[in-house]
Amino acid sequence: MTYQEKLSGIRRQMLNDKVDAYIIPSADPHISEYLPDRYKCILFASGFTGSAGTLVITQDFAGLWTDARYFVQATEQLHGSGFELVKLIAQGSPEYTGWLAGNLNSGDSVAFDSNLISLQLSQTIHNELSAADINIVENKDYLDSLWEDRPGLPASPAFLLDDALTGETVPSKLERIQRELKRKRADVHLISSLDDIAWVFNIRGADVKCNPVTLAFALVSPKVTELFIDIAKLSVNDRARLKSWGIELRPYQDVYTAAAAVSSSSAILIDPKRTCFALYRQLPAEAKIIQDTNPSTNFKAIKNETEIANIRDTMVRDGVALTRFFRWLEEAMVKEEQTEISVAEKLYTFRAEQDGFVGESFDTIAGYAEHGALPHYKATIESDSRLMNDGLFLLDSGGQYLRGTTDITRVVSLGNITQEEKTDYTLVLKAMIEGSTAHFPKGTKGYQIDAITRKPLWDHLRNYGHGTGHGVGYFLNVHEGPQVFNASNLLIDVELGMVTSVEPGIYRPSKYGIRIENLVLTVPDQSTEFGEFYTFETLTQFVIETEAVDKQLLDTKHIQWLNSYNAEVFRKLSPFLQGEDLKWLERKTKAI
Amino acid sequence: MTYQEKLSGIRRQMLNDKVDAYIIPSADPHISEYLPDRYKCILFASGFTGSAGTLVITQDFAGLWTDARYFVQATEQLHGSGFELVKLIAQGSPEYTGWLAGNLNSGDSVAFDSNLISLQLSQTIHNELSAADINIVENKDYLDSLWEDRPGLPASPAFLLDDALTGETVPSKLERIQRELKRKRADVHLISSLDDIAWVFNIRGADVKCNPVTLAFALVSPKVTELFIDIAKLSVNDRARLKSWGIELRPYQDVYTAAAAVSSSSAILIDPKRTCFALYRQLPAEAKIIQDTNPSTNFKAIKNETEIANIRDTMVRDGVALTRFFRWLEEAMVKEEQTEISVAEKLYTFRAEQDGFVGESFDTIAGYAEHGALPHYKATIESDSRLMNDGLFLLDSGGQYLRGTTDITRVVSLGNITQEEKTDYTLVLKAMIEGSTAHFPKGTKGYQIDAITRKPLWDHLRNYGHGTGHGVGYFLNVHEGPQVFNASNLLIDVELGMVTSVEPGIYRPSKYGIRIENLVLTVPDQSTEFGEFYTFETLTQFVIETEAVDKQLLDTKHIQWLNSYNAEVFRKLSPFLQGEDLKWLERKTKAI
Repeated sequence: MTYQEKLSGIRRQMLNDKVDAYIIPSADPHISEYLPDRYKCILFASGFTGSAGTLVITQDFAGLWTDARYFVQATEQLHGSGFELVKLIAQGSPEYTGWLAGNLNSGDSVAFDSNLISLQLSQTIHNELSAADINIVENKDYLDSLWEDRPGLPASPAFLLDDALTGETVPSKLERIQRELKRKRADVHLISSLDDIAWVFNIRGADVKCNPVTLAFALVSPKVTELFIDIAKLSVNDRARLKSWGIELRPYQDVYTAAAAVSSSSAILIDPKRTCFALYRQLPAEAKIIQDTNPSTNFKAIKNETEIANIRDTMVRDGVALTRFFRWLEEAMVKEEQTEISVAEKLYTFRAEQDGFVGESFDTIAGYAEHGALPHYKATIESDSRLMNDGLFLLDSGGQYLRGTTDITRVVSLGNITQEEKTDYTLVLKAMIEGSTAHFPKGTKGYQIDAITRKPLWDHLRNYGHGTGHGVGYFLNVHEGPQVFNASNLLIDVELGMVTSVEPGIYRPSKYGIRIENLVLTVPDQSTEFGEFYTFETLTQFVIETEAVDKQLLDTKHIQWLNSYNAEVFRKLSPFLQGEDLKWLERKTKAI
Repeated sequence: MTYQEKLSGIRRQMLNDKVDAYIIPSADPHISEYLPDRYKCILFASGFTGSAGTLVITQDFAGLWTDARYFVQATEQLHGSGFELVKLIAQGSPEYTGWLAGNLNSGDSVAFDSNLISLQLSQTIHNELSAADINIVENKDYLDSLWEDRPGLPASPAFLLDDALTGETVPSKLERIQRELKRKRADVHLISSLDDIAWVFNIRGADVKCNPVTLAFALVSPKVTELFIDIAKLSVNDRARLKSWGIELRPYQDVYTAAAAVSSSSAILIDPKRTCFALYRQLPAEAKIIQDTNPSTNFKAIKNETEIANIRDTMVRDGVALTRFFRWLEEAMVKEEQTEISVAEKLYTFRAEQDGFVGESFDTIAGYAEHGALPHYKATIESDSRLMNDGLFLLDSGGQYLRGTTDITRVVSLGNITQEEKTDYTLVLKAMIEGSTAHFPKGTKGYQIDAITRKPLWDHLRNYGHGTGHGVGYFLNVHEGPQVFNASNLLIDVELGMVTSVEPGIYRPSKYGIRIENLVLTVPDQSTEFGEFYTFETLTQFVIETEAVDKQLLDTKHIQWLNSYNAEVFRKLSPFLQGEDLKWLERKTKAI
């Protein structure tokens, strides 16, 4: 079935239902960012593979709203699909609601699948559209009937992590949540988000590519904790451990009836950003709904000492794998043809040799030359470029390890780079250094770190269209909240123990792209008469390319930082390297 | 009557009315920042002279909530008054509502004077207190009966400005507002804020010290524009001009009945931050209330070409006055005793010589040594310090001129300054330069400029407890919105044509304070493939002290900026100076 045929199929059902517009978001019933195949609705309907976007379909228009990271990619992928690209001004903002309000008539109807819309998004849509007298039709899945062989729910095994890995027992985590419920005067707490469930129950799985989560819901109250999960995923031993902590195991789908059965006199805490509208609708209408961030989201962002020690360890392993990879790449390019896909596959094998490696934390972005300008590029068989001894190669990759999650971007010169490439590379490096060496008072928000990081680029009238950094999970999702370093006015403090990426970039479409990314841990700095200050410890341990650096553009302090960072990388990785690998690292980490 | 007696008098009335807590905010019926004497309620009740704060009184507690700028001052001024200082965490935040919710009992009552509470604040109070089951009692003025000789409403003359001064006629401004009303689907617009009225009607007055405004309200609809003002303030000629533009003049107090008489089927636009609750209550309950920033607030922030040309002119005049003053100060300190008050008075006379000078734009802050550490210090007869040839002297002052409003802070060494003073001075200068030379993409918010400005201080674990900058009016209030450079997450773009201050500082209580402040205009920078960039043009023209600079702490670009700024100051001011003044400026603007 072509995309055009699918579009016609959707439009036929809309006509039948007298629905004037249909919204297809990028989500699942857990409002995940990365989706199980069953919920890759945008890919199914339009062919767009990006991780963020929304389709809106009327009888005479079909559009994909997505952000600057995907403009080039979307233009290519949507070609011939019947969908047009609509460029978002602000990443993640539901700007299509304004379009709907402006383009539909009073009395028209808009439909969506309520399992794929968060409560918060449903409220935004409702507010925008009701002002324009447009109705909402819930619970419409127009894809299912068109989707032959639609994948079922994933059923990968799940497993509990030892306390030596997590640093905190499940009962301790549940107790902290109970205290928070009390503080918020909530009787019941419904958790839908998969990374929250993974953290609370020290459980991991493989239901979603790159995200080591398992599909489940949880209901927590002072009386009972219920975990809604396909029990077949769990070993007998793990089932017994969960039960020993007073946790009741119930079938996955039962969460809908369990939600409906919550006492109507209770106060229920749910996270409106991470609970689907369909499940919210199940809750008793008379109950008091407290809408707030899941307590576990805030708890898990602050890594404990065990997690931090394990992450530091894992960063060394990841750096060793990258060292072997880049050393191999230099040699391999001489011997035989290498492409973006072939090197990404090879990188996987180097990581897989490392103890505790589970899988990739996201699809490797291996972007040679102009492909580097697509911040979320994933090479396909059609696009796959051969790496030549010419220009820049961007590699953004990460691993899921039992002892932590990594996410690192490096750009290397493959030869003959231009002065413009050098300048851009050096300015991005300067921005990365400024961001990750910042000193800042307690209470600083992500938007302040973002501004400080961007300044070296702004000074040269350059900028990038994505955020500066995202929170990173512990053997969990590579993107996690609540903190984010970007220009949005989100009021979340940068707190001690948070792990966040710092990844400025410069992208020159059809030429090249540069991004340099390290993960940093918020640590205490000094307290002075001006207050308590924090700073960052860089966690990522892998050499930063110096060949592309134009020293003129750096201050002494930046050069000192770069040299001391590379020296530390050598100190930490060298005990695990031998022979040519060791020599290569020694050469690459030489001071400039 | 002592403050303790006044407090007893208030508490007696509370008992009578069965009111458990009484709130006294710092405001008038126009929700002004600077108040006519009649509305200086906090000063009357507690003796505190700061421009921001709230009194909250119960039978067993009386507190002043104010922010870090006033901690030291409030502690001194409240001594023996019966009021305790409660330190605000966030400037301007109504944190006392949390205290009330926590300290009162369910069923208790809180009262206030509805003329002195904005609609927005009333909503915040209502939300916080209703959750705790606390009632609100409106329209209680407990000060009036205790206030012998309470000043009446001010009645200073008002006058219209020529178009050569304003650059835009009143009919043109009204037309722009009408267009905005149409866009927002509003039928009627009630304006309460005095600076908005001054801008819309090109009218100025002297009802409020330092703010050249006149007490008035306005009702704007497509049919009629009504100005509620004491007609005796206006010349016959100005009355005729206003009428010739179709503006009806009505008595000031009539606004309450006029508000009540608005058609109940209309949509009324009011600014919830700048309309008092009492007036909101007069509007028909059935009317649709559109709560949004006054269109004129956004319009007047963008200075037109006439205004900008006039401001540039005025900055030179102000710089000439400051040159004469500082030259005089050097000589005068040798000849006779000079104090904070005597020099502030002398400064006034130098400004008064300048063409178009109307008065001060705020009370001069002349802070010698430790008094400089109080960011909003105003010398009193008791506190007045003699200036000695030792340490730092901070002078923050500004003028109202027919062609613009100035606001400038300089710190000068009077001799024997320490290395700590030099270091702090240089870091503040560096921060000021970083902020006012920033390049930033269109769409940048004030919180991003704030972070960039603070970074040089954060790098050295220093900080300041106030915002980095505020909007400045054109021959209008020295503080005006909508933009602000501070850490709050206000979503206001820094737009072309805005005039804002950049004024970082470092304060060492009981030692000294440093603040360096220039006004800057947002101007276009280049457009690149990364978007449209803006930057700032520095408007303020007066030498920046170089004696206190420690060059080691500055990069070459900062030293270059400083030298070229001082050179430009000399170029611009020298044509208006002779003899010793000219020699003094030549010496002070020498490159370092």
